[in-house]
Amino acid sequence: MRTTSVDVVRIATKGPGDVSGLLGLIEQGKIDPKSIVAILGKTEGNGGVNDFTREYAVSALSAALAPFIDLPPHRVEQRIAFVMSGGTEGVLSPHITVFTRDSAANRVSPDISEKRLSIGMAHTRDFLPEEIGRSVQIRETARAVAAAMAEAAIVDPQDVHFVQIKCPLLTSDRVEAAAARGNKTVTNSAYGSMAYSRGASALGVAVALGEIEGEIDDEHVLRRFDLFSSVASTSAGIELMHNVVIVLGNSTSSAAPFEIGHAVMRDAIDSTAVIKALKSVGLHIEDGSGPPMASRQLVNIFAKAEASPNGSIRGSRHIMLEDTDISSTRHARAAVGGLISGLSGTGAVYVSGGAEHQGPPGGGPVAAIARLSTK
Amino acid sequence: MRTTSVDVVRIATKGPGDVSGLLGLIEQGKIDPKSIVAILGKTEGNGGVNDFTREYAVSALSAALAPFIDLPPHRVEQRIAFVMSGGTEGVLSPHITVFTRDSAANRVSPDISEKRLSIGMAHTRDFLPEEIGRSVQIRETARAVAAAMAEAAIVDPQDVHFVQIKCPLLTSDRVEAAAARGNKTVTNSAYGSMAYSRGASALGVAVALGEIEGEIDDEHVLRRFDLFSSVASTSAGIELMHNVVIVLGNSTSSAAPFEIGHAVMRDAIDSTAVIKALKSVGLHIEDGSGPPMASRQLVNIFAKAEASPNGSIRGSRHIMLEDTDISSTRHARAAVGGLISGLSGTGAVYVSGGAEHQGPPGGGPVAAIARLSTK
Amino acid sequence: MRTTSVDVVRIATKGPGDVSGLLGLIEQGKIDPKSIVAILGKTEGNGGVNDFTREYAVSALSAALAPFIDLPPHRVEQRIAFVMSGGTEGVLSPHITVFTRDSAANRVSPDISEKRLSIGMAHTRDFLPEEIGRSVQIRETARAVAAAMAEAAIVDPQDVHFVQIKCPLLTSDRVEAAAARGNKTVTNSAYGSMAYSRGASALGVAVALGEIEGEIDDEHVLRRFDLFSSVASTSAGIELMHNVVIVLGNSTSSAAPFEIGHAVMRDAIDSTAVIKALKSVGLHIEDGSGPPMASRQLVNIFAKAEASPNGSIRGSRHIMLEDTDISSTRHARAAVGGLISGLSGTGAVYVSGGAEHQGPPGGGPVAAIARLSTK
Amino acid sequence: MRTTSVDVVRIATKGPGDVSGLLGLIEQGKIDPKSIVAILGKTEGNGGVNDFTREYAVSALSAALAPFIDLPPHRVEQRIAFVMSGGTEGVLSPHITVFTRDSAANRVSPDISEKRLSIGMAHTRDFLPEEIGRSVQIRETARAVAAAMAEAAIVDPQDVHFVQIKCPLLTSDRVEAAAARGNKTVTNSAYGSMAYSRGASALGVAVALGEIEGEIDDEHVLRRFDLFSSVASTSAGIELMHNVVIVLGNSTSSAAPFEIGHAVMRDAIDSTAVIKALKSVGLHIEDGSGPPMASRQLVNIFAKAEASPNGSIRGSRHIMLEDTDISSTRHARAAVGGLISGLSGTGAVYVSGGAEHQGPPGGGPVAAIARLSTK
Repeated sequence: MRTTSVDVVRIATKGPGDVSGLLGLIEQGKIDPKSIVAILGKTEGNGGVNDFTREYAVSALSAALAPFIDLPPHRVEQRIAFVMSGGTEGVLSPHITVFTRDSAANRVSPDISEKRLSIGMAHTRDFLPEEIGRSVQIRETARAVAAAMAEAAIVDPQDVHFVQIKCPLLTSDRVEAAAARGNKTVTNSAYGSMAYSRGASALGVAVALGEIEGEIDDEHVLRRFDLFSSVASTSAGIELMHNVVIVLGNSTSSAAPFEIGHAVMRDAIDSTAVIKALKSVGLHIEDGSGPPMASRQLVNIFAKAEASPNGSIRGSRHIMLEDTDISSTRHARAAVGGLISGLSGTGAVYVSGGAEHQGPPGGGPVAAIARLSTK
Repeated sequence: MRTTSVDVVRIATKGPGDVSGLLGLIEQGKIDPKSIVAILGKTEGNGGVNDFTREYAVSALSAALAPFIDLPPHRVEQRIAFVMSGGTEGVLSPHITVFTRDSAANRVSPDISEKRLSIGMAHTRDFLPEEIGRSVQIRETARAVAAAMAEAAIVDPQDVHFVQIKCPLLTSDRVEAAAARGNKTVTNSAYGSMAYSRGASALGVAVALGEIEGEIDDEHVLRRFDLFSSVASTSAGIELMHNVVIVLGNSTSSAAPFEIGHAVMRDAIDSTAVIKALKSVGLHIEDGSGPPMASRQLVNIFAKAEASPNGSIRGSRHIMLEDTDISSTRHARAAVGGLISGLSGTGAVYVSGGAEHQGPPGGGPVAAIARLSTK
Repeated sequence: MRTTSVDVVRIATKGPGDVSGLLGLIEQGKIDPKSIVAILGKTEGNGGVNDFTREYAVSALSAALAPFIDLPPHRVEQRIAFVMSGGTEGVLSPHITVFTRDSAANRVSPDISEKRLSIGMAHTRDFLPEEIGRSVQIRETARAVAAAMAEAAIVDPQDVHFVQIKCPLLTSDRVEAAAARGNKTVTNSAYGSMAYSRGASALGVAVALGEIEGEIDDEHVLRRFDLFSSVASTSAGIELMHNVVIVLGNSTSSAAPFEIGHAVMRDAIDSTAVIKALKSVGLHIEDGSGPPMASRQLVNIFAKAEASPNGSIRGSRHIMLEDTDISSTRHARAAVGGLISGLSGTGAVYVSGGAEHQGPPGGGPVAAIARLSTK
Repeated sequence: MRTTSVDVVRIATKGPGDVSGLLGLIEQGKIDPKSIVAILGKTEGNGGVNDFTREYAVSALSAALAPFIDLPPHRVEQRIAFVMSGGTEGVLSPHITVFTRDSAANRVSPDISEKRLSIGMAHTRDFLPEEIGRSVQIRETARAVAAAMAEAAIVDPQDVHFVQIKCPLLTSDRVEAAAARGNKTVTNSAYGSMAYSRGASALGVAVALGEIEGEIDDEHVLRRFDLFSSVASTSAGIELMHNVVIVLGNSTSSAAPFEIGHAVMRDAIDSTAVIKALKSVGLHIEDGSGPPMASRQLVNIFAKAEASPNGSIRGSRHIMLEDTDISSTRHARAAVGGLISGLSGTGAVYVSGGAEHQGPPGGGPVAAIARLSTK
């Protein structure tokens, strides 16, 4: 029996503080603000430590949604999971994707046979600065992933296609706070800490989904890149101290008119994987090589990008890691964003940088959500 | 009768001053330094005004080749056309493409029926700073394109698939020199002048190939973007005051085991055009949708990229023109480079930024050279 | 008779959205929120077109102050003039300076003889995109400056020491809106429009204060750099379409325990001018060359910085205008910020970039506010 | 008895490859190319890993000087110490400082009583990638400093006022080479390795000059910032694998018409130290506070700049370490360059970034060379 349904809406934004598109859909009755469970967004900052577009977007969304859900702005974030990924380099286009969930009672069509899109959320406790990027973060994240799967009514890890995590980073203040307690953080660099936090969080997903076996400890983070999750997508932000976990997958308990699938890019130019992810949900690229599946429509693509740590891609040297002017995460988002946008026909896709332990080194997961024909 | 042949070799570089790959091939007898007519390179600078990797690469190549061709280093550039395009953002990989040309007498196979790759070169006189970006530059460039076509033994403009031009830019010194003569340059901005010079040069190609009709004057440059060439690729550099023109096309007089074709990207995410360019020379993308043509091998792709001037791509807003941290040319190269690399399977492709009047607004030409089976 | 008083408080911020310092002072009774007339801030964005830290700061301040002044957040800006200048490069430290004004009745000491700090505000009507950077903006700004002087009870232009203006810029949308009406904006470049808007606004100040004579027209903006105001400081922001004018000077009607003075930096390394501005309000640099004036204390310095348009400073070439990686405004703020911070002993100074028509080419005004001993 | 003399000439450059100024002085007989021992330059790259302006400048200088000293270009560097420091942010102006040394026999004036400028050079062996940033580099550097002091005929460490070192950095290739030998480098980050190499080299100076006592080991590098040299200035470059050491000080054996002195900036805004360094060689700032010493003339200032590692300067937060768009070394050079240029009246000063263990945390050495009246 289908018990819940999920709706997914992609909305273009005119700036990090722009909530007009969302408010318009609420006013038109197309989105019920009380049913919003998560908003994933691409904002146009640098995606680095000093990217304030993420917290600005969250602040604007919180202020806008607060009156609708009877909460003060600062408490909205406790109810809705906001994941703002900074960086819309190249052809990428700023936007938000709004996920709602509610009881499916009154809209189940009797003939659904396949699993459909389902979403589950959970979060960890706040971390101490010295816990970030280490095994505590891995362990707590794994626990939260399991909780989110349960909430999504997904039993088989194979049905999990994308796990988005928002995780904290270190700042000078936080490093000093740890030092004041006599503890050393995993790095003193704010920028460097983002990689550690993303990496540990991704390893937490891999542990939860059984993608890696055996003990994981501190030493594996950012070193054992052969250990990774094929569906993890983690973003670090200055605005929180805990991990927020969003599990996206397909479930028999969902009556949603959406399906999600994924593939793994083995490197940043893996067009085959992007095409495979599209095909997994019945979509194809528009080069005329295949028949259109008219009843399917792309909602969004979610992918991770990174510069391959060994400095080359299929034998050709890249310069992303040795550029002092543009951070490698910006380079990688721009390139992978260019490929995915070209294959999907739109720049309004979610490509996020920093894929440590998210897919193989230099690669990353790519998931696609398709809307099914609703006649 | 086939009278000339052309060879094209792509060589990876370890830095802008690295000539070891080229010297190695010369020493192995695979490249005859006396037959080199042009070298197109991607160097790893920012591609902007202060990108010194271009002149450094030219300086290193000149010093390396001088002893082989009995010229002092500073005169090598008069014999070999060097076009270094700065900027290998994202997955793009620094490399040079060496074009040689010689008499085909001793290697013509009797059964060639199609036209084959041919190359021709010419250059304009030095421009005054106040001529850059204006009709004088357009007119002189058109004249040089015609001369280069003749040298390549190409009669039909339809057989021209790529026209690479290196053109000058303005610096503070040059602007002041014009002012001292009582003349005003088209802009005072060094960075801005690169666009004017590229645009006027591209319009020169369009005039020469009959792609646009009627009078072209100063006012059209960077304003009438509906006027463009489908095969022009122009790069501005601080190191010269004239235009260098390289025409690449197919000719019945060539015995080269290469073919060139092109398509026009209508925007920066036009995967269809990239695939079309590949197919035009018998190549396909590796997604399993078509049979491999085993006898064909990609040598290189040459493309232009730019941020669409109207601020959006297929209706989605891009942020390239409003980013104060990364110039729009870097954004565009990274994105288009990501797409082309993904479709061709390598980052060692020539994607150059700033496509003013080179293809439609926001788009640009994409040419592919394939090596034919030589068995 | 002294009729008003002004208070000036500099508050460090931990990020663009941080209002905790201001709220703390309000809670301690040190700042009466109802008396706040203007807040000038330095935020840590790039200071360019896509610097969202400015609007984020304004949004956060508006939300924080709204309950205290019985206005909804979006109307706070109509009562309090917020001027956020983006860019705290180098040693510059993010902070806000809060100006309050109220009736001086109950705190006038009978023995004041000199003029004291006074503040006046005014704003223009909204501009059309095509009016920005042109004579309409100059004329309307001049009118607003006169109004603000009157409000500050300053009669003699010599008593005006700093005129801060916040002005609009062009975006792709705004350029298109003008085009849709059949009108051409002064430039299509968002970044370029910031200079035009700052320049026209500064010329408006010069007109109002009688610093330039004769007709000013469109052609003078960004061309006749010999026309300038010695006290204008203008910043462009994406968040408004009108000019906000804040006049700071000394007036006999003020009972404030502050004095303001200024000097004009003739170039970006004019330490003499900085020292002169400090001395004008009884302050000195701490190199031991003069006696301390114990009764005076620096509140803040307000200065403009720019790369000299001719490409050199006192005969030495600078690279600010030819750097494609870092905009010249960021370079200039970092350098002038380094000098002023070194001479004043703190990085929490207000140095704003883009000094077109604000001081001589390559230079800019530098004003200092000192607090007098209050025993 | 004075046995040697030194000449110091500062020459402006028009670009990293510009050697015209130097060649002009050689042709005019003002510089004897055979007597050149060292050239310190500021080039206009980003000063980071991918700053190719340094090696381009060395390449151009080597090619230009080779014919004069009867060496092939690639061997010139073995005779002349080239130290190119990348990054001329803000008001800094690209230039080179040429040091020559020869027998003083024919120009000693009999009445010299004070010590005069002397220069000595030495270099270490090539390092393995895994030795960079560790105690081996410290120890070998200390040995080279002692050798350079001996060559400069400086006995008392107090007479050493500036020790410039050029040191290697890690690249992806070098990290992999070490890994292939089973060894781990101190970091995998190319950018990060620059700090390690600079830090270890500076500690080597401190050891040689007795500035620190006790054992120094690997763990102290980039951690014990209370250990530092007050006269070390170290720059990392991709173009070498050994350390080049240049000692500048005053010696009784020198007959040079120059004197050098130094002070230590305790932070990046320490104007007092800059003024002190100028005064130590008889110079003053031009604010009218002291009498000019007509017989003295500034030749150049040599200083190091860095972002204070604790994130603040005299209690005010700076954003240099948390900016993903501009590296902290660029921020710091721009700011300190602004201060020193303002106090010395010229942007053609040598301010180099990355002051790890060079002066106290956030500070750095500042040395000044003055030319004495030669009448």
